Amino acid sequence: MRAVQITEFGGPEVLNVTEVPDPVPGEGQVLVEVSRAGVNYADTHQVEDSYLSSAKLPLIPGGEVVGTTPDGRRIAAMIGHGGYAEKALVHEALAFDVPDGVDDVSAVALLVQGLTAWFLLNKSVHFAPGESVVVHAAAGGVGSLAVQLAKSMGAGRVIATASTQDKRDLALSLGADVAIDPATEDLTAAIIEANGGKRVDAVLEMTGGRVTDQSLAALAPFGRLAYYGMASRELPKDIQLNALMSHSSTVSGFWLAHAFANPTLLKQAYAELAAEVAAGRLKVVSGGDYALSEIREAHEALRARKTTGKLVVNPSK
Amino acid sequence: MRAVQITEFGGPEVLNVTEVPDPVPGEGQVLVEVSRAGVNYADTHQVEDSYLSSAKLPLIPGGEVVGTTPDGRRIAAMIGHGGYAEKALVHEALAFDVPDGVDDVSAVALLVQGLTAWFLLNKSVHFAPGESVVVHAAAGGVGSLAVQLAKSMGAGRVIATASTQDKRDLALSLGADVAIDPATEDLTAAIIEANGGKRVDAVLEMTGGRVTDQSLAALAPFGRLAYYGMASRELPKDIQLNALMSHSSTVSGFWLAHAFANPTLLKQAYAELAAEVAAGRLKVVSGGDYALSEIREAHEALRARKTTGKLVVNPSK
Repeated sequence: MRAVQITEFGGPEVLNVTEVPDPVPGEGQVLVEVSRAGVNYADTHQVEDSYLSSAKLPLIPGGEVVGTTPDGRRIAAMIGHGGYAEKALVHEALAFDVPDGVDDVSAVALLVQGLTAWFLLNKSVHFAPGESVVVHAAAGGVGSLAVQLAKSMGAGRVIATASTQDKRDLALSLGADVAIDPATEDLTAAIIEANGGKRVDAVLEMTGGRVTDQSLAALAPFGRLAYYGMASRELPKDIQLNALMSHSSTVSGFWLAHAFANPTLLKQAYAELAAEVAAGRLKVVSGGDYALSEIREAHEALRARKTTGKLVVNPSK
Repeated sequence: MRAVQITEFGGPEVLNVTEVPDPVPGEGQVLVEVSRAGVNYADTHQVEDSYLSSAKLPLIPGGEVVGTTPDGRRIAAMIGHGGYAEKALVHEALAFDVPDGVDDVSAVALLVQGLTAWFLLNKSVHFAPGESVVVHAAAGGVGSLAVQLAKSMGAGRVIATASTQDKRDLALSLGADVAIDPATEDLTAAIIEANGGKRVDAVLEMTGGRVTDQSLAALAPFGRLAYYGMASRELPKDIQLNALMSHSSTVSGFWLAHAFANPTLLKQAYAELAAEVAAGRLKVVSGGDYALSEIREAHEALRARKTTGKLVVNPSK
């Protein structure tokens, strides 16, 4: 089969299309004909070997695929690696059925990004109808889905943040009620103002540093902040439990890896997300549909941080 | 009317029964004939003036009452002070109807303690059927109700902690599946062992210090710890958000005062608690039914920390 296999770690230049043997399914695995593989920023780390868990060579990168099983089921799945190829191995327990009406790009985007947005709203902040929520990085992969999911769940007010006017316009077009610049000096005041003068019920945060600190200070009593990343590479301040008590605030950490322990819940979440897409209530922003032979361009675009939306690669091209 | 009114701050010796004019209802207030008033540890601080908000003299202590309105309704209510008296002023918006089948001691115990237990389980940790929960100070006012509520909500396993064998036996009699000593050196390991080798889904914590730290370390992914007091007077360690992320953990602070902003939810919570008592599924442990003339003895018993269960005072005696 054709695949992108790397034999040394490095930048986009180590990504080469080559011919390799088909992988052989082990117990509980199924061989999928890959229709699209997701291209994530995490993949650039995997290729550089700058990830927490180090990779082994030779390596076929790519952790998300949508494709078809030998018996004709269309499934999407998260895999450790091996996605940038015509065929990939998928664990049956973590394979999600993709209904008609969900295109390939959406099917892939509902994996890491969609499941993260779903878990943040449902399991981390226990979002309830009528509540207000701040979605940081609202034009990003997770944020753009979280804005729409929150609206679909009956949000009273969705406050998006994004660093450029184009991104804020995108968030507004996805249903955010208001969009603000997170670089505002007093972000706490800006959030409260954007919420009509009231403190907010929930915050989805992946920036870190002062954005976390100032968002936490904008929570209403019984407000919840979910923290799922530190894109700024700056740590937020440590949290005193007595301070949480004096405001009846909640802070949640979230890492998608932990969700894998509960495949039943994961499948329920994926099915709900897919139903939202099929019903036209959840729109995935496409960030580029690359041929396998264009994989270097895809990584270069990601590394330049200029993309918006979901990037996928098509192994048949 | 007869009342306990203090004219100087101090210990139990400043508590004297005296005759004072009936209070006069303001707007939104109703004058209640007090059947029982709750006696709380917080009252001893109020009498000493060692509370966060300082009190004004002369003062009738007592923040919880159950009684009858002029139109014959039986209601329970939290009030700032004025409870240790034959009559007390209650804000209509914060008065809860007490159904038949709920005795006076229970009606009072469902106020601060009952509502705290309800909010902790429903709003702080979002407790779900089948989950495991650690209830610290499980023989205490909040803990003894939380153990039973968690079981009634379908808890998979309730792990009680209490400092003496008598208290642990009480927790077991209320439905806890297992009871352990929180003074155990490695409390994290003891909790996990008590949960059959598995990490726990929820913790209700009001001790502080190492009990908080070691309980947090016993959480399963997506586990939640609610922190609602610091009885040991020792601060827990500050919390790093990245540490919460790497375990998908949640920490919530809780202070009942914030619940007053939502009287509708408070009334729903009280009604649910009262229904549990009426149905015989929730049992209030009585800690002593004192005459008004015995108020010094009641405070002395509380200060000696020897009581178990709810202490009330009867203004008609």
